[in-house]
Amino acid sequence: MAGVPRLPGCALCEADGGDVVWRDDALRVILPDEPDYPGFVRVVWNAHAAEMTDLSSRERERLMAAVWTAERVVRERLNPDKVNVASLGNLVAHVHWHVIPRWRDDRHFPAPIWGAPAQGRDDSTARRRDAVRSRVPGLREALARALQEAESAA
Amino acid sequence: MAGVPRLPGCALCEADGGDVVWRDDALRVILPDEPDYPGFVRVVWNAHAAEMTDLSSRERERLMAAVWTAERVVRERLNPDKVNVASLGNLVAHVHWHVIPRWRDDRHFPAPIWGAPAQGRDDSTARRRDAVRSRVPGLREALARALQEAESAA
Repeated sequence: MAGVPRLPGCALCEADGGDVVWRDDALRVILPDEPDYPGFVRVVWNAHAAEMTDLSSRERERLMAAVWTAERVVRERLNPDKVNVASLGNLVAHVHWHVIPRWRDDRHFPAPIWGAPAQGRDDSTARRRDAVRSRVPGLREALARALQEAESAA
Repeated sequence: MAGVPRLPGCALCEADGGDVVWRDDALRVILPDEPDYPGFVRVVWNAHAAEMTDLSSRERERLMAAVWTAERVVRERLNPDKVNVASLGNLVAHVHWHVIPRWRDDRHFPAPIWGAPAQGRDDSTARRRDAVRSRVPGLREALARALQEAESAA
């Protein structure tokens, strides 16, 4: 990431933040390690910026295009009950988007995933999450392809 | 909202969801009643749609333009420590965006606002939130103006 503005001590300036599925000069798309949420995708702006409105409108459009590609591929591949999309950054104030497939029987539903789990991990739910997890390699491949196609078309 | 596709029983098809600051044929911007979070803004798509990728890319751009206008005006008027932006919809699966000004001493910081509060409501924090609340009428006016200007320019 030569030439990309970085902030010393920022976790997303100093490391990728997960398994990098795809990257270009502006952003990267990663699969973080979130055991309860297989298929969780993050889209991270490479340069350090704290808020979306610190980016130019063209930069925001480029970032959001990747977020919508991620949402579309997550829906096509995993067919979740809902998708949650969020840019928070209270802990790491470096623009990144969470794209989170949600299921009615996941550990927090219908609450957002960041609170205390409402449900324990019972066997049948764990099996259903394992079934999702088995589709993550296909998701990974489809994501990389879709992001590359979107870039080539732009 | 004549002609807008509605889903019977959907809370955001059947009611505005808060104090409407501005609306056009596509979307509305509201100030919800969130006592711990003065300056909280919601941007609601008028027609019923569950996910962002159910909208066309032109519709998404229009919606996100209003979200970024809201974020910009919230920052200009309230100068929060961070802004959180999210589209969740687990309870009301009708596309709506939360634009949430956050402060290091707010009740959930650095966690997202949807979990159990980490902090009680002490007097000095309550006074600082009251100071923010006193600026909400100015925020409301600036938001309406900025949204109207953005629409006129488009």
